[in-house]
Amino acid sequence: MLRHSIGLLGVGADQHGSFMRGPAEAPALIKEEMRSKSLNAYSELGTNDEHAYRDWGNIEEGSFASTEEMHAAIKDAVTSIMSAGLTPITLGGDHHITNPIVRAVAAHLGRPVSIVQFDAHNDLYENYEGDAHSHASPFARIFEAGPSVCCKLVQVGIRTATDHNRQQAARYGVTMLEMKDLPLDGKVIAGMLDALLPRDAPVYISFDLDALDPAHAPGVSHHEPGGMTTRAALDAIHHIRRPIIGADVVEYNPRRDVHGMTAMVAVKLVREITATIAASQRDKGL
Amino acid sequence: MLRHSIGLLGVGADQHGSFMRGPAEAPALIKEEMRSKSLNAYSELGTNDEHAYRDWGNIEEGSFASTEEMHAAIKDAVTSIMSAGLTPITLGGDHHITNPIVRAVAAHLGRPVSIVQFDAHNDLYENYEGDAHSHASPFARIFEAGPSVCCKLVQVGIRTATDHNRQQAARYGVTMLEMKDLPLDGKVIAGMLDALLPRDAPVYISFDLDALDPAHAPGVSHHEPGGMTTRAALDAIHHIRRPIIGADVVEYNPRRDVHGMTAMVAVKLVREITATIAASQRDKGL
Amino acid sequence: MLRHSIGLLGVGADQHGSFMRGPAEAPALIKEEMRSKSLNAYSELGTNDEHAYRDWGNIEEGSFASTEEMHAAIKDAVTSIMSAGLTPITLGGDHHITNPIVRAVAAHLGRPVSIVQFDAHNDLYENYEGDAHSHASPFARIFEAGPSVCCKLVQVGIRTATDHNRQQAARYGVTMLEMKDLPLDGKVIAGMLDALLPRDAPVYISFDLDALDPAHAPGVSHHEPGGMTTRAALDAIHHIRRPIIGADVVEYNPRRDVHGMTAMVAVKLVREITATIAASQRDKGL
Amino acid sequence: MLRHSIGLLGVGADQHGSFMRGPAEAPALIKEEMRSKSLNAYSELGTNDEHAYRDWGNIEEGSFASTEEMHAAIKDAVTSIMSAGLTPITLGGDHHITNPIVRAVAAHLGRPVSIVQFDAHNDLYENYEGDAHSHASPFARIFEAGPSVCCKLVQVGIRTATDHNRQQAARYGVTMLEMKDLPLDGKVIAGMLDALLPRDAPVYISFDLDALDPAHAPGVSHHEPGGMTTRAALDAIHHIRRPIIGADVVEYNPRRDVHGMTAMVAVKLVREITATIAASQRDKGL
Amino acid sequence: MLRHSIGLLGVGADQHGSFMRGPAEAPALIKEEMRSKSLNAYSELGTNDEHAYRDWGNIEEGSFASTEEMHAAIKDAVTSIMSAGLTPITLGGDHHITNPIVRAVAAHLGRPVSIVQFDAHNDLYENYEGDAHSHASPFARIFEAGPSVCCKLVQVGIRTATDHNRQQAARYGVTMLEMKDLPLDGKVIAGMLDALLPRDAPVYISFDLDALDPAHAPGVSHHEPGGMTTRAALDAIHHIRRPIIGADVVEYNPRRDVHGMTAMVAVKLVREITATIAASQRDKGL
Amino acid sequence: MLRHSIGLLGVGADQHGSFMRGPAEAPALIKEEMRSKSLNAYSELGTNDEHAYRDWGNIEEGSFASTEEMHAAIKDAVTSIMSAGLTPITLGGDHHITNPIVRAVAAHLGRPVSIVQFDAHNDLYENYEGDAHSHASPFARIFEAGPSVCCKLVQVGIRTATDHNRQQAARYGVTMLEMKDLPLDGKVIAGMLDALLPRDAPVYISFDLDALDPAHAPGVSHHEPGGMTTRAALDAIHHIRRPIIGADVVEYNPRRDVHGMTAMVAVKLVREITATIAASQRDKGL
Repeated sequence: MLRHSIGLLGVGADQHGSFMRGPAEAPALIKEEMRSKSLNAYSELGTNDEHAYRDWGNIEEGSFASTEEMHAAIKDAVTSIMSAGLTPITLGGDHHITNPIVRAVAAHLGRPVSIVQFDAHNDLYENYEGDAHSHASPFARIFEAGPSVCCKLVQVGIRTATDHNRQQAARYGVTMLEMKDLPLDGKVIAGMLDALLPRDAPVYISFDLDALDPAHAPGVSHHEPGGMTTRAALDAIHHIRRPIIGADVVEYNPRRDVHGMTAMVAVKLVREITATIAASQRDKGL
Repeated sequence: MLRHSIGLLGVGADQHGSFMRGPAEAPALIKEEMRSKSLNAYSELGTNDEHAYRDWGNIEEGSFASTEEMHAAIKDAVTSIMSAGLTPITLGGDHHITNPIVRAVAAHLGRPVSIVQFDAHNDLYENYEGDAHSHASPFARIFEAGPSVCCKLVQVGIRTATDHNRQQAARYGVTMLEMKDLPLDGKVIAGMLDALLPRDAPVYISFDLDALDPAHAPGVSHHEPGGMTTRAALDAIHHIRRPIIGADVVEYNPRRDVHGMTAMVAVKLVREITATIAASQRDKGL
Repeated sequence: MLRHSIGLLGVGADQHGSFMRGPAEAPALIKEEMRSKSLNAYSELGTNDEHAYRDWGNIEEGSFASTEEMHAAIKDAVTSIMSAGLTPITLGGDHHITNPIVRAVAAHLGRPVSIVQFDAHNDLYENYEGDAHSHASPFARIFEAGPSVCCKLVQVGIRTATDHNRQQAARYGVTMLEMKDLPLDGKVIAGMLDALLPRDAPVYISFDLDALDPAHAPGVSHHEPGGMTTRAALDAIHHIRRPIIGADVVEYNPRRDVHGMTAMVAVKLVREITATIAASQRDKGL
Repeated sequence: MLRHSIGLLGVGADQHGSFMRGPAEAPALIKEEMRSKSLNAYSELGTNDEHAYRDWGNIEEGSFASTEEMHAAIKDAVTSIMSAGLTPITLGGDHHITNPIVRAVAAHLGRPVSIVQFDAHNDLYENYEGDAHSHASPFARIFEAGPSVCCKLVQVGIRTATDHNRQQAARYGVTMLEMKDLPLDGKVIAGMLDALLPRDAPVYISFDLDALDPAHAPGVSHHEPGGMTTRAALDAIHHIRRPIIGADVVEYNPRRDVHGMTAMVAVKLVREITATIAASQRDKGL
Repeated sequence: MLRHSIGLLGVGADQHGSFMRGPAEAPALIKEEMRSKSLNAYSELGTNDEHAYRDWGNIEEGSFASTEEMHAAIKDAVTSIMSAGLTPITLGGDHHITNPIVRAVAAHLGRPVSIVQFDAHNDLYENYEGDAHSHASPFARIFEAGPSVCCKLVQVGIRTATDHNRQQAARYGVTMLEMKDLPLDGKVIAGMLDALLPRDAPVYISFDLDALDPAHAPGVSHHEPGGMTTRAALDAIHHIRRPIIGADVVEYNPRRDVHGMTAMVAVKLVREITATIAASQRDKGL
Repeated sequence: MLRHSIGLLGVGADQHGSFMRGPAEAPALIKEEMRSKSLNAYSELGTNDEHAYRDWGNIEEGSFASTEEMHAAIKDAVTSIMSAGLTPITLGGDHHITNPIVRAVAAHLGRPVSIVQFDAHNDLYENYEGDAHSHASPFARIFEAGPSVCCKLVQVGIRTATDHNRQQAARYGVTMLEMKDLPLDGKVIAGMLDALLPRDAPVYISFDLDALDPAHAPGVSHHEPGGMTTRAALDAIHHIRRPIIGADVVEYNPRRDVHGMTAMVAVKLVREITATIAASQRDKGL
């Protein structure tokens, strides 16, 4: 049984979404679903996560005077989770929050991380409609922080890359594994990640739910048909062969959800990432 | 054209569900969908099942003073179907009803059956929250009946096994084909079943709709993302290389369904199982 | 950037549907979704289709005294699109409209086309319940027009063929790639199409949304579980190795849709077919 | 145990090969290998073919004054095998012998057959270097015999088609499943065959060993790397869903073989085709 | 770098082969190839096995008065290897030697092992042509030793099972994963093994080289075309999720080999099994 | 028909091999096989390469006083081929020759190339046993030439990487797609290459025949079982989506070959690379 290995942080933010509001309501709803009697506490890998999580509360956008203030609070929370010896998993909120989270993770570690980003969009816009903190821009912001934060970004599931997006990817050495070229089997995707990720950097997983096909995750702001199955995503995560240093699950939009189906996908991702972290720390001695 | 080969029994029961009510309403709704003008009467295997079914009515939980009484009625119905030379297919209801059905099938045959269980959960709890008849326990009950009822259980699609579930599986010689290890192609799953099922025992199929991913079957009480596609399930069933002696489709919960999508999955499963039975009896001389 | 390469025609018709009304409302809704801010203008193949479409308006069933009159209007519109040097993509409406469209395309070209039909049903009924213009019959009508209209029909995703349907397929030399035998990978499906389609005829794509599994496209009148993933369909289309001369996307039924998910699938299909047309005309010199 | 179901004919001929001699020596060597103690008598499908074969002797090219005389002898032998109620399997010899064999089979049946040809080459040359009986031409000769002999030819594994070969395929309605587009899994290939073969015609299998990669079958005159695995070929044959009316295994060239490896592949093909014939006749009531 | 983790034992024996002599010469040749300058010392998993092996010499059949005496010597060697804290890997010799090896392993452990047997044949004959020690019988002999030696046998790659072989498999609870049903991807085979092997027993790997297709391993006495690729075998071994307690590689017949190709396959298997053992002992704490 | 598009250069060199001599004899033998009557002139892509090649002769190691002199001659030949408007394809020789070839190609282009290297070994040794020109070191030499020669190296099929090899790969930003993680389908491998190769650099293909399994290519000095199938390699090459600026096929060792099987693989690779070059230059406008 896993005991207090994860610090679970919610961030109720969606002002930097470009199309719909909704993700700000996500953290509370996902946490509620995690406590649902519909589930038992076992992961597919056989771990029991009943006592794995310490709830680090929810950071609410409305409590802050500015995005910068909110970012500072996010960084403080992430740092305190790591200082307590736990691994941070954050429930978004829109995707822009990955920027302060990853900066805090790398700062606390004192070295850069690799990022595996599951997403339909590559989120590398220099800015989106003038908003540098847009949910379409977090990874541009992360690379601006320089080589001490992120040493490699691999994107999985992309299916909407613009010319600008491709130029930004080339500029920052980002590898886009586009949906049209992705193998069907998540275990093979994991093998591709193994070839692409540096051997000596821990991995941060950033999971935008719209990486999945809308059939599997209708509760997102941007429906992009032709996405991953939940199964392929879980298999890819389970088979990542690097220590996992943190993760987020973002862009859940309850206003589009159907009977809570997508919230449950978020819960499943948290549970299986937690199980993989447990395995990765045991096997790989981080 | 198939004539009166199947006895179709409904069981409107959900008291032994652990989380939500709803499956008791399923039989009437699925039967109504089977008569829908939206469909023709042909299976994918080319059989016409317009006259394949004799409706054996619905057994309603509310009509009985106890679970034991209801079980007796289920057994009587299954026995009368088989005595009429028909193959029983039962529409649940929650999964606990598989216990009396399989006991009746084996008793009528005078020999044990193999069971192929499609499910997210292994349903082998000794009891669940004190309920020995819980929908989480039917296969434990079946094995308690001893070797004359079930000689082998193979579970397909499991993704929530607890330590207790695994111990029970080991205790009863059950093979769990967990979702995380399942090939994508249903024909390959059928090949695995061929290796695992005894050559000389007929097969009973118990299909819990939550074996499927919630994208394909949202109308179930327990959403467990990462499940089978309907396609893989149909392919696996079509290619089972044993005589099929009976089947059930359980755990449809209309309260969670979306425009009747899951009811239609149940209809499809009944039709394709019926077609496979027709083929299996013709080819294999049961 | 693609400039005015596609003439986009809507046909608001559903009187020849056999089960539900609804598709008549589709063209306006899909066109609205195409303008949604939720999307950018890039296809998966990297083309930007912001200026690719010229809207040829919507033909509305209610404006015509007879089906024949409506067909004449459809043919006029398709002919005017092609005369303007554009490729016609039509948004249905029920499937019966493919008949006048393909007749107009072949007449304008002065030679027959091959058709790739994605569909759960083979739509080759001599007539359906007495309606020769039924949405279950368009391809019988097309073959009646003789060898100058269609030289080969390949159907992808069939899972409900009746004896009559199979006889009609044999009569007209139609190849049915049934869902039960289809490979999982759309690229492999494209290879099969390459073997089956004549080398020297351009291809018309007719996409009935019920080719897809109801999980991916709930917004259709006839739910037939066990269908294609959106991904497999997109991969098959992208890899078609023939010039594409026109296309339709039909049978969207908004009354069954869930948060516009299926409308967005229609939008995606239009975008990726447009991108494939651009590539096919550049590479293959039509 | 299968009893006398197959008439096994050898044809020691290679004058119509275009490159190397050698196949004339094949029949005796393959028959010897069939009797080897290295093997037991069971097929992968579980049949025992110890008593399945009646040896119809070998027809030797050298005994005839002309190709026409030899063809007459081949036809007589095939007719006598079928008259005895057996299924003919012929061991070549070069591929040109398929022409008289198939003519005799169709004549005895009184109706045309479908042919499934496994081959690296499509063997549809009008003639090859002036030889109308070339081993590169048998299927052109078969189609010249008109619709009473062959109603459909599907070719599997082609990887050398010339422009002329493609024109001939188009002329005769032949479907080439080229190696570059073939799925890896033989079961999927069988599904493609099911879509392509007429429902009501029995199937004749013509297996040129160079359909296989030279790694699996070095003992052929023409090495064409990039071919099928023996496994994929066996899986495709096992899953053919039509009655099999006859077969040949041709173009074994012992002068290129390595420790008899290719002879053993020929033996395996005969055994598994025999097993499939047994299954197809039992299941499909020919 | 792995240091002295493996005791490498040769057994030069082939009197109990049923068809050809040759395997007695194998151990010396394989060991010579292991020292070849053609190779470096790294496995695919990244381990360096330059100093991994302690050579335990070769046991030569000719030195013993009886099979029983030789078995005693084999058991002594295996026991001494394990007593030295090493894992035994044995180079055959014919397959009959697995019997004394496994008995010694289980005796030293004091508990039964699971066996994963890669093989074309199931080697469960009660006896073969009167020889109870035949290379076709070792697993029958092992099961006769009772539940303290072997708790589960899973066979991978079988393609020649006789009725007697199948009865023996049923009698001893053996699972045959037959070649005709095996997935192409070795990682998926490993998932099947995970479902079939008891959780709490260490695994012994017995690798008969004829599990592989003769294209990959021509140097065996019995060519059975249609076998595994070397790649699939390596992938299956790498992904076994149980501690590996020992292994053998048997039935190399140099008289059939081609430029030492099969000897090198044996070397590769030893290296990759060694690497997997290192990983399994590190990860799984045996 | 392709006319004089390729300059075909032989390099008869093997002094820098580390284990066996033999590759120096390769160019003449492969060229002879290209003229064999066993083949026609068509590629799998449908091109006719009868007149595609201009033979640029063979450079023989023995004619030069030093490796440096030979390198100068190789560079001259490559430059003259490109100056004549042809694409250079070189037949090795051992792998060390790729170093001068690629330097000449980039110099003539005036910009760096991407390299796709098919190989069992990563050939990035700083030096091998003191030989800086070892066949185990060409890519280290290439990277020493700085960013004007090679902007990205992707290696396909690696299965022997040492710690030093991995460090060199990290140092030079090389991506190793190791055999243990490679998908079975070459089309999927091509998709991976598309994600990894820069969009704006032409591709040079360096094909070491030991990338293939020894079953497919026995004629190499270093047998490394578990390699690619010829089929997967051909599919990967056909689907490369970049202009191809040159290629080599190296390390054929006739002393290990079996009936010329591996020479024919070399011929096939040259033919299919030539066909892909024709397609890439037509489609992609280099």
